[in-house]
Amino acid sequence: MNDYIFETRMEVRDYECDIEGIVNNAQYIHYCEHTRHLFLKACGLSFAEMHQKGVDAVVARMQLQYKSPLRPDDEFISRLNLTKEGIKYVFHQDLYRVCSEDGADTTPSEQLCFRGKIELVCLVNGRLANSEDYDRAFQQFIANKDSRC
Amino acid sequence: MNDYIFETRMEVRDYECDIEGIVNNAQYIHYCEHTRHLFLKACGLSFAEMHQKGVDAVVARMQLQYKSPLRPDDEFISRLNLTKEGIKYVFHQDLYRVCSEDGADTTPSEQLCFRGKIELVCLVNGRLANSEDYDRAFQQFIANKDSRC
Amino acid sequence: MNDYIFETRMEVRDYECDIEGIVNNAQYIHYCEHTRHLFLKACGLSFAEMHQKGVDAVVARMQLQYKSPLRPDDEFISRLNLTKEGIKYVFHQDLYRVCSEDGADTTPSEQLCFRGKIELVCLVNGRLANSEDYDRAFQQFIANKDSRC
Amino acid sequence: MNDYIFETRMEVRDYECDIEGIVNNAQYIHYCEHTRHLFLKACGLSFAEMHQKGVDAVVARMQLQYKSPLRPDDEFISRLNLTKEGIKYVFHQDLYRVCSEDGADTTPSEQLCFRGKIELVCLVNGRLANSEDYDRAFQQFIANKDSRC
Repeated sequence: MNDYIFETRMEVRDYECDIEGIVNNAQYIHYCEHTRHLFLKACGLSFAEMHQKGVDAVVARMQLQYKSPLRPDDEFISRLNLTKEGIKYVFHQDLYRVCSEDGADTTPSEQLCFRGKIELVCLVNGRLANSEDYDRAFQQFIANKDSRC
Repeated sequence: MNDYIFETRMEVRDYECDIEGIVNNAQYIHYCEHTRHLFLKACGLSFAEMHQKGVDAVVARMQLQYKSPLRPDDEFISRLNLTKEGIKYVFHQDLYRVCSEDGADTTPSEQLCFRGKIELVCLVNGRLANSEDYDRAFQQFIANKDSRC
Repeated sequence: MNDYIFETRMEVRDYECDIEGIVNNAQYIHYCEHTRHLFLKACGLSFAEMHQKGVDAVVARMQLQYKSPLRPDDEFISRLNLTKEGIKYVFHQDLYRVCSEDGADTTPSEQLCFRGKIELVCLVNGRLANSEDYDRAFQQFIANKDSRC
Repeated sequence: MNDYIFETRMEVRDYECDIEGIVNNAQYIHYCEHTRHLFLKACGLSFAEMHQKGVDAVVARMQLQYKSPLRPDDEFISRLNLTKEGIKYVFHQDLYRVCSEDGADTTPSEQLCFRGKIELVCLVNGRLANSEDYDRAFQQFIANKDSRC
């Protein structure tokens, strides 16, 4: 188990599923984006307000593993960790299905459904740059942390 | 104020907004659909399971009023009421922005952002029909209720 | 048959379909929006550029009729007509499935799948107003036309 | 330049863009999925029909590089190549913006905007398996081809 720094609980909405009856692959990107923006808000920054200031965090690369499909009526927990590698913010984001408990055991178990490594860079007024706002917001998390994997 | 029979609290996700910086018009349909499916679940039915049984509720008509755009970081409450008109289920669905309280008043105020009248019919194995499952699930709400407006 | 002023051919993309195996209701709003923006471009205006100039066309009301669901692999034609009622632009938008021809008849037939009446107003720098740009772009179509239905 | 085996031309739809005014990251997954399904159709298979037969191609991994954002009014060409590695189909998918020609040169130039390596496996009745239908459809392309990169 990794030491995550943020998590939020979500549920699958039926409109996110496609004709295979499972959550469409693109939707996982949305789940991850929403989780990052909630994390950002918890750090004191609004993604929308930063955009209006001319500071945009944009995705440069993603490595995604689809391990077990999320389905209608599933609840899941979206967790993330953060490292900084040079100018890049690297988010390690995992989605865990909350499995309904059965029998005497009241502890709900979890199943890893999706793992993403998502690298972002900042554009300040359209140019690649370090954002002081983002660096300050993330300071406590990236200060002395090594990259996972 | 109408006498709603179900409500759920949601928040705008940034990816639901478009280049105008406000929630895209199509997304309100998603909010309403998700609210109906949560209501359905509260009534003991799963939309996905009903589909697998061959019972599909499909939209026949919508009348939508966009009153004030939902924006990034907005929280809102999705409320609904239900009537039955002939073979049709008619959902009256309103979205209210939760306005942040200011000053001494600790009661958050609300603003109506969207109002929809959404008519659904049931297809049982592909044919227009009354669904006993849906009728039973909604029984307590549509028993002796007249149509609003 | 109405006298449409613009049409474009589209095809259903599988990701637009939901667990019922048909195009999700919200997607029809997207089809209509995209058609309006293509029409706008044909009239010499870019929706994105207008937004940057501070002119936004926003939806005030919609009346939507879902007549026959669009399905995977369907092709369809999106047609529109336009009237002006006071300050509002009223788009009459219909989606027709192109049915594959069978037998000797080589004329593909069409089936009306969706009908929408979509009312937009213009915001200029955030305030309700007549937009000279939009009025000029639409001039030839709304000059002396009465409202349909 | 790679030797692609399939391509299709698409245009950015405004609703695919988010508050940053560029195509949302998740939408590239949709572009790639739609391109694969068009390719599949060109090979004689319908994704939707295969699903009804109990054969689902599902994504196991993706490696995505976002090189230059697609914007409103952009046209682009979606190209793909295919290799087979063990049980996995590996799609190499690139999106190129079509840049408007300027001056005397009438050849439109192109810019690589997005590169994805997308690995799929087949589930036959829910179990990991080789699909004869998919193998036959792709036969001419994966017969004696080595993996790119």
